[in-house]
This record gives sequence, structure tokens and C-alpha cells, in this order.
Amino acid sequence: MREVNLDYGAATPLDPAVLEAMLPYMREHYGNPSSGHSLGQKPRQAMAEAREKVGRLIGAKPGQILFTASASEANNMAVKGIAAASRKKGTHIVASSIEHFSILNPLKTLEKDGFRITLLPVDEQGLVDAGELERAITPETILVSVAAANAEIGTLQDLKALTAVAKAKGVPFHTDAAAAAGWVPLDVQDLGVDLLTLAGDQLYGPKGSAALYVGQGVRLRPLVEGGIQERGLRAGTENIPVIVGLGEAARIAAETREERAQSLAALRDGLKESLLKHVPHLRVNGHPTRRLPHNLHVSVEFVEGEALLMHLDMAGIYVSSGSSCTSQALKSSHVLAAIGLPPELAQGSLLFTLGRESREEDVSYVSGELARIAQLLRAMSPLYQNFLKKGR
Amino acid sequence: MREVNLDYGAATPLDPAVLEAMLPYMREHYGNPSSGHSLGQKPRQAMAEAREKVGRLIGAKPGQILFTASASEANNMAVKGIAAASRKKGTHIVASSIEHFSILNPLKTLEKDGFRITLLPVDEQGLVDAGELERAITPETILVSVAAANAEIGTLQDLKALTAVAKAKGVPFHTDAAAAAGWVPLDVQDLGVDLLTLAGDQLYGPKGSAALYVGQGVRLRPLVEGGIQERGLRAGTENIPVIVGLGEAARIAAETREERAQSLAALRDGLKESLLKHVPHLRVNGHPTRRLPHNLHVSVEFVEGEALLMHLDMAGIYVSSGSSCTSQALKSSHVLAAIGLPPELAQGSLLFTLGRESREEDVSYVSGELARIAQLLRAMSPLYQNFLKKGR
Repeated sequence: MREVNLDYGAATPLDPAVLEAMLPYMREHYGNPSSGHSLGQKPRQAMAEAREKVGRLIGAKPGQILFTASASEANNMAVKGIAAASRKKGTHIVASSIEHFSILNPLKTLEKDGFRITLLPVDEQGLVDAGELERAITPETILVSVAAANAEIGTLQDLKALTAVAKAKGVPFHTDAAAAAGWVPLDVQDLGVDLLTLAGDQLYGPKGSAALYVGQGVRLRPLVEGGIQERGLRAGTENIPVIVGLGEAARIAAETREERAQSLAALRDGLKESLLKHVPHLRVNGHPTRRLPHNLHVSVEFVEGEALLMHLDMAGIYVSSGSSCTSQALKSSHVLAAIGLPPELAQGSLLFTLGRESREEDVSYVSGELARIAQLLRAMSPLYQNFLKKGR
Repeated sequence: MREVNLDYGAATPLDPAVLEAMLPYMREHYGNPSSGHSLGQKPRQAMAEAREKVGRLIGAKPGQILFTASASEANNMAVKGIAAASRKKGTHIVASSIEHFSILNPLKTLEKDGFRITLLPVDEQGLVDAGELERAITPETILVSVAAANAEIGTLQDLKALTAVAKAKGVPFHTDAAAAAGWVPLDVQDLGVDLLTLAGDQLYGPKGSAALYVGQGVRLRPLVEGGIQERGLRAGTENIPVIVGLGEAARIAAETREERAQSLAALRDGLKESLLKHVPHLRVNGHPTRRLPHNLHVSVEFVEGEALLMHLDMAGIYVSSGSSCTSQALKSSHVLAAIGLPPELAQGSLLFTLGRESREEDVSYVSGELARIAQLLRAMSPLYQNFLKKGR
């Protein structure tokens, strides 16, 4: 059967070159980088190199990169770490309402613990307004957190405009760049962010690889306490093979980003045109131009999303209904609610994320199959029968 | 140069069979287990199998195993997770004074946050007394945490005696079994523990692999919040290759434990005898019989530990001065202080941890070299000169 993966946002394959870089640290160089003796040397060096490579991807110094086991962990570290370190300064945090749950859920916990949380609305394309941010910040505000890109609808924020507001008010700014890193240019100096989360499994690096950039002067308490690893900010024996893999993935991402982004954006635009042409009652979500180059998010009216996914899966087409962190819970998306998408449209949503392996010839196959399946499902929909009889 | 690694406690190599089991998940099956489509299936199955294998090593059900990225993370989850979930019930926690820093440091943080912490003393062999535990528990106590084995001095606690006390008082019992799992029999039912931490990098599994057993009825709040992974108790995309590796390592450990433990204990005893015979002013620490089979901890009087390590390293002998989580900080060990070892002896300490690759012929080489080096260093020690002149 023909197989077309258009769900690279859920997982990218591991680049064979990255695996090659990791293997020596899974075979010979198994030492603990904290060991004083010779077995610790090679792993220690490898970790230093990886830190440099990750730093280079986002314009940071190696010493500003902390390795974590997931973007979720890095997001938790940023939010809870700042909250714990700055509690005496203030207890107000501002974030966007379309953040990932690894930002929103820690904020809920902090709220129960006495913090005040302001979630900024977004417009119908998913953008946070700098003026809204300015009005939300108070002298009590200790952190602003707005993701560089939304993994679901693909919208890229105007980070510079947002960080300028936070900087003027002296409030540290964190951005979750898990979906953006490796796809759009990210320079922490240029953007003016104080903390940044990135993930290796979004850029052909290993699973369990992620990092938190922590800029100068940012005070943070550790989430995982214990040993002195990662400057005492993240205890636990370092996962050297994965760290080496993240470094190599970051190096390759930095080198190939522009070309990859251009070619996949062209392919994605082709897919969008083809879907709009062949699939009736289809709506494209998110921002038309300020968006991740490999991301396309659509809603198909009169069609139930889970049934759509199942039929597409049977046709060998792998797509997602949204964030893979919630897909098993079948919850409706808080992101789609925030951009004002009516529930009947939201539940018929499909997220396409392209990858290096995506090809021109996939486009017509996918749009043809989606048209066929949507027609099939529409025919069974009482809402659609109603629409045919009465119009909207 | 001849190389003898006797620091397997800092890192075990990755079992080639474990790497083989991991590789398909680093090559073909890269999907996200949370994905609803076909690419999620194989990883999801693999994760379920790994959970079963890890459960089997400690007599737990698969659903009671949570995967984490390090034993430190699992320890933090246990301590902070219980504290957050049980705060209304009480704010007192009991632990031993020789716990790992990933227990002690979270407890310090909780103390600042209003909890009361009791650290139980140990005797000169490192044992916690069940009577002391009983007297320490109050109606406010919400958790007891005592490690199954101390990674440094190797002492194995009488866990059953300790859990019986906690159970009688209705207090959940956590044990950090990172150093013990795969070396001594651990059955959570038989031991009566409610939470247990284990680490893959101590049993020839991959770096970054660990698990927390959470027994029935234990209420826990997550440390890393976000997605619904690990029953909502640990957010973040699952590190499937590492989880698969942990499962395979646990399976192999369960099958080979008894034989490995016996042969390494014999080898370790040989090393101990040889050192006692050839190295003057040497003292063996910890319990003579209740100890990890692959662990030997000694102190060499009149000799500075770091110099000893450096000279041994030059002779190709890799040992540790203690926990690798603190070795770079060159702190004196809280464990050795707790067993009452005088500082001048503590600072001349060496931790030998044997592994599968350890051989009979290493013993005489190591004791010969240690005797030679210790003599050299002793000759330069003012304390030793003093001792020669005046006696102790």
C-alpha cells in the first residue's frame, strides 16, 4: 500500500547521520561525564560540542544551553523555575491562550498556589497583540511566555514586537520554540528572548532530546534537584548519546533550514491549492503568510474528524487532528476555540505537517483521497443533509 | 596500556543486545505512540512490552510503572509529587540521612516551603534502625523514603522491617532502588514498598532510562505537567528507543541477576582480601555482608583521595571517590560523615564498583598498583610522617 506521512509534527524520523554520530556513545564511550577519570573525558567533550552546536542554531553561548529530556520539561522548568525564583518579586504571569499544555498546566498549578495568571487572547489568525500584552503587564509580572509558533495552526508570532514590550517593562520573556526551531530563523539576541525551549524530535534529532536556553541574568530554580549537573539546574546523569544527537541535529538544521523551509513551503502551498480545489466545504486555518513553512491546518465542514483520520489511515495517509499530546484524549482544541473556530468546524480539523521525505506526487494522491473520503462521510452526515435541504 | 574499569556505578556500558533492541525504533519505527494512525502502533506496542518487562523485574503490574528520564527525576517525582498531593493531610516527611541528593535536595526545598523533615541517622555500617523510624513517624507524616542500597558504601537496608513500620502507621514508603535494581532481589509486594525508583544506566540499559513504580492507592502530582502521557503523571513525548532499551535491560537483568551477583560478589571479596593484604592502613567501609554484590568501599589513611584517583587513572585503573553526582564538586561525602568516618579517612576514600567485564586477573593488578601508589603518596604525607614519629 502507498504510504504518505503528513504528520511529521508528531515525530520526525531520526536522521541517519545523527544516528551515526550517536552510536559511538552507545558503544565505546559509555562513561559518565562527571567522572574524574579518563572514561569521563570523551563524553564530557562530546557534551561541550553539542552545547556549542545547539547554541549556534539560536545564536546563544554554549553556557546558556541546558539539556532536558523533552520540550515539555524545558517549558515546565522555565515557568515553574522562574516562579519559584521570583516569588518575592511578584506573582503575576502572562502567557497566550494558545500555549502548549506544558505551559498552560503548570500555570494552572501556580494559580492554585497563589499566582495570578493572565492568558492573552489571540485574533482569528492566532496572533497575540503587542498592545494587549502591554496592558496585561503589571509591576507584579515576573514572566511572559508566548510560543514562537503554534504547532497546531502554524501561526508565527511577531516575537520582536512582543519582547520589546516585555523588555521595556523589565519582565523576562520565554518562548516555546519547540515547533519553530529548525524551521524559521531564531536568534535569541535579535528576538530579545530571555528563555527559549527547543526540541530535537522536531528536527530529525533523537527522541528525548530538548534544551532550554537561559539568558544572562535570568534566575531559575531547578525542577529536578539533586546532583550538580547542568550548573545545578537539572540533576541526573547526562544522556550523552541523545545530547550528541541533539547537537548534530541542530548543526544540520542550521545548515539546511533555509532550503528545506523554502521547498516545503512550496509543496505545502501546492497541497493547500489542491485541497481547496478538490475538497468542498474546506477552510484553511491560521495566518496566511506568518506561518510554519511545513504546516497546513484545515477544517472540513460536515465531517467528523476522527472518522476522517481513520479512513485516511486506511488509505495509508497519516495526518493528525491536532496536538499529539491530547489526541488520545479526544479533547476539542483550546487553540481552535481561541481563534473562534465554531465547534462543528473544529471537530472536522486536520493538521498536515510535511517533512524532508514529502514529495510533489503525494499532493495529488492526498487531495484525491481526502476529497473521496470527505464526500463519503458528508453523505452520512445529518448536518449536511440539513444543509442541503435548508442551506446554512 | 592495560585498562581496568572499576567504576561501573558511574556508568555501565550499553548491552549490545539492548542496543539491537533499540535500533529498529531509531530507524523504522519513529512514530509517536500518541498518534491515532498506523505510525503510532508499533511504538505503542513496544512501550507496553517494555512496561511489562520493567514491571516483571520488581513484581509490579505494567500499569504501575512510569517511565522517567533519570532516577533523579523519579526521586523528585516521588518526593515532590507526594508532598503536593498530600499537603492537606500532613507536612512531615522522614528520610534517611544517607539518601542521594535527588532525595535530600527536594526535601530541603520542601522545608523552605513549610514542610518538616526528619533525617534518620544510620549506624556505623550505614543501617537505618526500624525503632528510630517508628519514633520519627507522627500523624503528620505523609512519606518515608529510604534507599534500598546506598550507592557509595553499598549497604543494603532491611527494607521489610522498615516498610512494616510505615505500613502499621499508614504512611506510604518510597525506596530509591537505583543502585540496587538488577543486583539484589526486589519484589515490591514482598518488600511492601509503595513507590520505587530504578535506573537503566545501572543495569546495562541506555542512558536516560529510569522508572518510578507507583503502587495502588498512592496519590501523586506530576512534576512535568502538560500532555496526557504516563497517565497524566509525566508529560512529554515518550522516548521510545530508550524505553525499549530499559525494558530489554530489565528483562536481561531479571534473568541473569542471581548468577551475576554471585560471581561478582566472589570477585569483589577477592579484591577486598587482596587489598587488605597488600595495602597498609586500609579500612573497608559499609556493612560486611548486607551489601551490594559488586560494591567495595575503602578508605586509605594518610593518602589524599584525589591524588590517588589521578595516579590510578594514569595506571589505567578507573575508580571513583564516591557519587559521580558530586565528584566534580569535590565535596566531602555526607554518607561517610553519617557513618562517623573521620574526615581524614573520608577524604582518602575509594569506591570500587565491578561489572560484567570485571575479571579475576584485574584483582592482583589493581591491588598491586594501589599498594604502590598509596606508598608513594603516603611518603609525601606530613600526617604520615607525624604518625611514624609519634604513633596515632
